[in-house]
Amino acid sequence: MIAKEDMSKNFQDKIKKIDGGICAVNNVKVAGVRDGKYGVSLILSPNSAVAGVFTSNKVIAAPVDYTKRIIGDGKISAIVANSGNANCFTGNHGVWDCEKTVEIVSKLINVDKNEIAIASTGVIGRRMPMDIISKLITEASKNIENSLNASINAAKAIMTTDTVYKESSVEVTLISGKKIRIGGICKGTGMIAPNMATMLCFIATDAIANQKSLKIALKEAVNDSFNMVIVDGDESTNDTVLFFANGESNNGIILDNDNIDDNFQEGLNILCKDLAKQMAKDGEGASKFLEVEVNGAKSKLDAKIVSKAVIKSPLVKTAVFGEDPNWGRIVAAIGYSGAYMDPENINISLGSREKIVNLVLDGEILAFEGTDNLKTAEKLMKNDEIKIIIDLKNGNGTATAYGCDLTYDYVKINAEYTT
Amino acid sequence: MIAKEDMSKNFQDKIKKIDGGICAVNNVKVAGVRDGKYGVSLILSPNSAVAGVFTSNKVIAAPVDYTKRIIGDGKISAIVANSGNANCFTGNHGVWDCEKTVEIVSKLINVDKNEIAIASTGVIGRRMPMDIISKLITEASKNIENSLNASINAAKAIMTTDTVYKESSVEVTLISGKKIRIGGICKGTGMIAPNMATMLCFIATDAIANQKSLKIALKEAVNDSFNMVIVDGDESTNDTVLFFANGESNNGIILDNDNIDDNFQEGLNILCKDLAKQMAKDGEGASKFLEVEVNGAKSKLDAKIVSKAVIKSPLVKTAVFGEDPNWGRIVAAIGYSGAYMDPENINISLGSREKIVNLVLDGEILAFEGTDNLKTAEKLMKNDEIKIIIDLKNGNGTATAYGCDLTYDYVKINAEYTT
Repeated sequence: MIAKEDMSKNFQDKIKKIDGGICAVNNVKVAGVRDGKYGVSLILSPNSAVAGVFTSNKVIAAPVDYTKRIIGDGKISAIVANSGNANCFTGNHGVWDCEKTVEIVSKLINVDKNEIAIASTGVIGRRMPMDIISKLITEASKNIENSLNASINAAKAIMTTDTVYKESSVEVTLISGKKIRIGGICKGTGMIAPNMATMLCFIATDAIANQKSLKIALKEAVNDSFNMVIVDGDESTNDTVLFFANGESNNGIILDNDNIDDNFQEGLNILCKDLAKQMAKDGEGASKFLEVEVNGAKSKLDAKIVSKAVIKSPLVKTAVFGEDPNWGRIVAAIGYSGAYMDPENINISLGSREKIVNLVLDGEILAFEGTDNLKTAEKLMKNDEIKIIIDLKNGNGTATAYGCDLTYDYVKINAEYTT
Repeated sequence: MIAKEDMSKNFQDKIKKIDGGICAVNNVKVAGVRDGKYGVSLILSPNSAVAGVFTSNKVIAAPVDYTKRIIGDGKISAIVANSGNANCFTGNHGVWDCEKTVEIVSKLINVDKNEIAIASTGVIGRRMPMDIISKLITEASKNIENSLNASINAAKAIMTTDTVYKESSVEVTLISGKKIRIGGICKGTGMIAPNMATMLCFIATDAIANQKSLKIALKEAVNDSFNMVIVDGDESTNDTVLFFANGESNNGIILDNDNIDDNFQEGLNILCKDLAKQMAKDGEGASKFLEVEVNGAKSKLDAKIVSKAVIKSPLVKTAVFGEDPNWGRIVAAIGYSGAYMDPENINISLGSREKIVNLVLDGEILAFEGTDNLKTAEKLMKNDEIKIIIDLKNGNGTATAYGCDLTYDYVKINAEYTT
């Protein structure tokens, strides 16, 4: 999952990829059960400080509103998440169904109602099938445990059009030398199909942390990971990332005088990027994973604008599907992105683990018909993972966006499987 | 082409659809010839005031730069346009090839070099095949005439992935009672595939006008027509719209004290909308034409933002292809558009010439499974032309965007036909 080259050298001995998903974290117990298209995950992490990021869509699902209010107090002990129904555009019924769901969970696992967060993904505009959800919660509540399998089951229970479950976990040696763990599960295959493919992500840590520190760390990590994944550019009404710390490691405080422990931040960044890449790879209909790295932009913002414009371009995405190293479409996307650029001074190359080949160097096209550069590029395009590297040579701004190709299957999934 | 309902009642007796395309305009002579994927159009309109709008892409093709400079002086007498090669990302060679092309035209049709504009569409990053272009110009120069057929040939010669030629023409009775004509040809099937599908548009009028009045009128017309067409959201390096007036009608000045003649403006608006719709209908891979009308937005800008977000959404586009009246995806796109909205107070309906059916009314879903509304909506979705009507009930802002569905053929055209 997490490749060595994703960590800068400074952090390689500080952050270690471990097994266990969300259950790699001390005293996090989970369960996940499914019944056809419906699923329920329960996550138990007593007395945890918590921070969240949510959809910026103006149409907001009831559970998102509900959870925003709950985490305002800064503490949760449990999360209940369901797939199959998004509980969105459901009016007052939606709010009541949230309350009812939380009540059921509260009784079954003996946790204060006000410490339970809720998240939903699935069809919008339909009332929650409370009988099914209630049955699934009851079943899940009997099997809550801290185990590899439990993490996998919880990750599976929130899947919708996802084809694989997604989890990641790391052990971080803090600057103090103490060790803590971070682990998460997530789902999401489009960014995001409102009917089926919301992004949900739950990340636990056993570090000692207050809400403020979690907020700061999460914001940084999300900006360079989940916010850089684009499958189709649509945004869900239900997107939710929750990050919570139960302090169970008894091993060090990650926030000190407003400064987050560097190693902790890097560990969280790497975990979020790992999950973000897993989502991009599982993008609806995707046949290839696409990464667009931009260097030399005037600013970080410019780098993000360019990388997102390129990774979102339907023409670049179809070219990747067609295994065509079409630098012309890349150049055009950079050009309309709105970022500062000088067309006569850019580099564009294609990269893989083994090789990098220049398509455009200092504004000159190198990958002409008949050239070795084009032949090598055409070979690289046959890989499952494609990396486009752009150097604007205007400054120090860098950013990487994650996405996938646009295929017949994307159209099929979204046109034929109507709801 | 131009439907009656596209004209407000005030203008129905002032603006008349006529035949002839660009040659409907007095003393506009044109020719168009093709040789395989290459084509050349020549347009002759002596001593014409001229205004243009061009791509806002930062990567700009040589002919766009060239023509911007030429029309700076406010007057042209001829245009040479070619398909097959965009002359973009071609460095100094590109500039020289523009100069050479114009020189050839100048000699053959005896027009001052400085009064010839140039436009190109096709593959980018390749040098112009000057032998072929030169041969085509020579051939075209022998057949320049004012005729129905000549307009069609000129419209055909600039086609790339277009499947039909596009032209439109109107006769306008000015407020003074005098009559003038406006006629245009255009090409464009994606908005816009940089390799193949630039938008080019040439509009002539025989009104008497200076550059200032043409600029004002063109800007307004383009904003509500070509700027509201979205096929894939990509933007070409070569987009060009030229509007020129030769005064040959001897019939009235359209600009008076900075006020454009209302009827003239409306005539131009209708003509541009007609051409814009023709482009959207011929969108790459399109099986259905899609129109998104937004009413009741807080501002005109908000209305545009919403209509463009909905028409651009890959999820809405695939739903239209799948003939699914998926109001959930429409709601989500409105929500993330960034415009002001109150989800609990919106209307969404589907319309056709015969019928309008509500999907969502005052924030309540009417098109539930089993309802007549859903059945009617499903029937309407089988039409070739789909109209989504949104009322945000926040103000007086209105806008309409034009587009098409996202189909297997879009992916095929852009993935399989590599260049």
